[in-house]
Amino acid sequence: MAWDIALVGIGKIARDQHIPAIAGNPDFTLAATSSRNATVDGAEAFKSLPELLEARPDISCISLCTPPQVRYADARAALEAGRHVMLEKPPGATLSEVHDLQALAEAKGVSLYATWHSRHAAAVELARNWLADKAIRKVEVIWKEDVRRWHPGQEWIWEPGGLGVFDPGINGLSVLTAIYPRPIHLTDASLTFPENRQTPIAADLTFRDPAGAEMSAVFDWRQEGEQTWAIHVTTDEGEAKLTEGGARFFVGDEEQPTGETASAALGGEYPSLYARFAELVPGSTIDVDLSPMTHVSDAFTLGRRLTTDPFEF
Amino acid sequence: MAWDIALVGIGKIARDQHIPAIAGNPDFTLAATSSRNATVDGAEAFKSLPELLEARPDISCISLCTPPQVRYADARAALEAGRHVMLEKPPGATLSEVHDLQALAEAKGVSLYATWHSRHAAAVELARNWLADKAIRKVEVIWKEDVRRWHPGQEWIWEPGGLGVFDPGINGLSVLTAIYPRPIHLTDASLTFPENRQTPIAADLTFRDPAGAEMSAVFDWRQEGEQTWAIHVTTDEGEAKLTEGGARFFVGDEEQPTGETASAALGGEYPSLYARFAELVPGSTIDVDLSPMTHVSDAFTLGRRLTTDPFEF
Repeated sequence: MAWDIALVGIGKIARDQHIPAIAGNPDFTLAATSSRNATVDGAEAFKSLPELLEARPDISCISLCTPPQVRYADARAALEAGRHVMLEKPPGATLSEVHDLQALAEAKGVSLYATWHSRHAAAVELARNWLADKAIRKVEVIWKEDVRRWHPGQEWIWEPGGLGVFDPGINGLSVLTAIYPRPIHLTDASLTFPENRQTPIAADLTFRDPAGAEMSAVFDWRQEGEQTWAIHVTTDEGEAKLTEGGARFFVGDEEQPTGETASAALGGEYPSLYARFAELVPGSTIDVDLSPMTHVSDAFTLGRRLTTDPFEF
Repeated sequence: MAWDIALVGIGKIARDQHIPAIAGNPDFTLAATSSRNATVDGAEAFKSLPELLEARPDISCISLCTPPQVRYADARAALEAGRHVMLEKPPGATLSEVHDLQALAEAKGVSLYATWHSRHAAAVELARNWLADKAIRKVEVIWKEDVRRWHPGQEWIWEPGGLGVFDPGINGLSVLTAIYPRPIHLTDASLTFPENRQTPIAADLTFRDPAGAEMSAVFDWRQEGEQTWAIHVTTDEGEAKLTEGGARFFVGDEEQPTGETASAALGGEYPSLYARFAELVPGSTIDVDLSPMTHVSDAFTLGRRLTTDPFEF
């Protein structure tokens, strides 16, 4: 028996990832959508979430993939209406609003799931298990991609709250915080802003591991040619690297097989996210880990600001 | 029987507030200080906290009033050494590092107290009690002061992590979050940076109260003449204002007597902070409310950036 689910925000990420993942999951049926302009074949189309919530009290689950700047009002409306809610990353525009949603979900006795899709990449589990008993000396997070290729025309990422290069960078931080055996915290940051934009196009971060490893992250949205989403680790038992956004894991030069990981068995990041949501809903469980977003907020608060050439798509 | 306490960072705030407050509190004896250059008559002087911790295992309490950018290492060392720790505001340079300190204090079974001195201003309790049962329509936080008068030559406030005008502004937010009957969250921010500085000299913030009140805050460090640290509130039962940083509370035009508040009885903000620390220590209780700092981080993350004239002291 499947739950009816509604998808809010029918843009690129909905079509590329959410709709196929829901279609492939026997626990969910895509019953409705909310979008100003777009519709999805086979799902009842609404122009706004309040209309949807009123017309379809039978839909128990709501998945939000609108931009973070506008997500709170919909998330609150869905929770107020007693629906289970799943949030795309980052879970909101501010930490405080997510605290508020979490308190509301607890009060209403429904699930709230702040997803971090990159944590469900096929090899992340291998890296976490391998690192668990290692003495770690050095960690480098390298997240370099071409914004024109991955975010064509998405103006909202350059608006305040859109996070700029931290929109992909937070994926790297979500993986780092998932595989690392201890909490870490930012100590230094440099953020490079195009002179005509409100969010950074590049960032250099330094973290402190209380156990002493040297830790850095570099994010850059100006990377043409080869794209890099990798975490390199040096330990007392050699080097390892997680590459392609978490899809592949190497110890030394030897690739580790991902066939056995839970995420690989489920068919990838978004299928794994919906499988997790299906675990949370029956117990109205809350799964909200704000550590990746907290590191981003810390970088904006602590960061030195540099200015570079204007950016146009 | 008094606890020996050590004070770390002997600057303006230590001399103006901490030393007199400790001297006036029968529960604490100022036994030692740590400071690169300064000393205090009657207290053993150390150049660094690690030296102090090693030489004086009898000192059970450590109060840190160094700038937030350098506070973590000392706080961690004190907690690792099993001492109770009190932190000036803001409690650190990042949210994540304070989460880390909190986890360490819990593991070590010692107190950690993140102080917010403005919450202990004489009339704050009156404002909280008065607002508790009101329908609130509008709130304005106005924190306008002359940075040259209150932070003469303090270059660290202009460095990354120094928070700029949020250094006083966070006091206003600490009061707002103490008197307001519900959590709120930031929805919009404009931050104005001098073109030669890394932190803002002014900020305009808009908050959302889930119950619908209109909420704003304005911080400005360029205020000559009269200085303003006030919160104005409009309710269905009239207007009220908390002024002079929380020292005076008016309902309509009628000032409410502060003689009866706990803070007034203790003699002011810092005496009240040390009285609170004395309550926490016996039970190794942790008192860390990060909501004012979270609003500041949210403002840096979400804020629109404007540039203004260079600032020199």
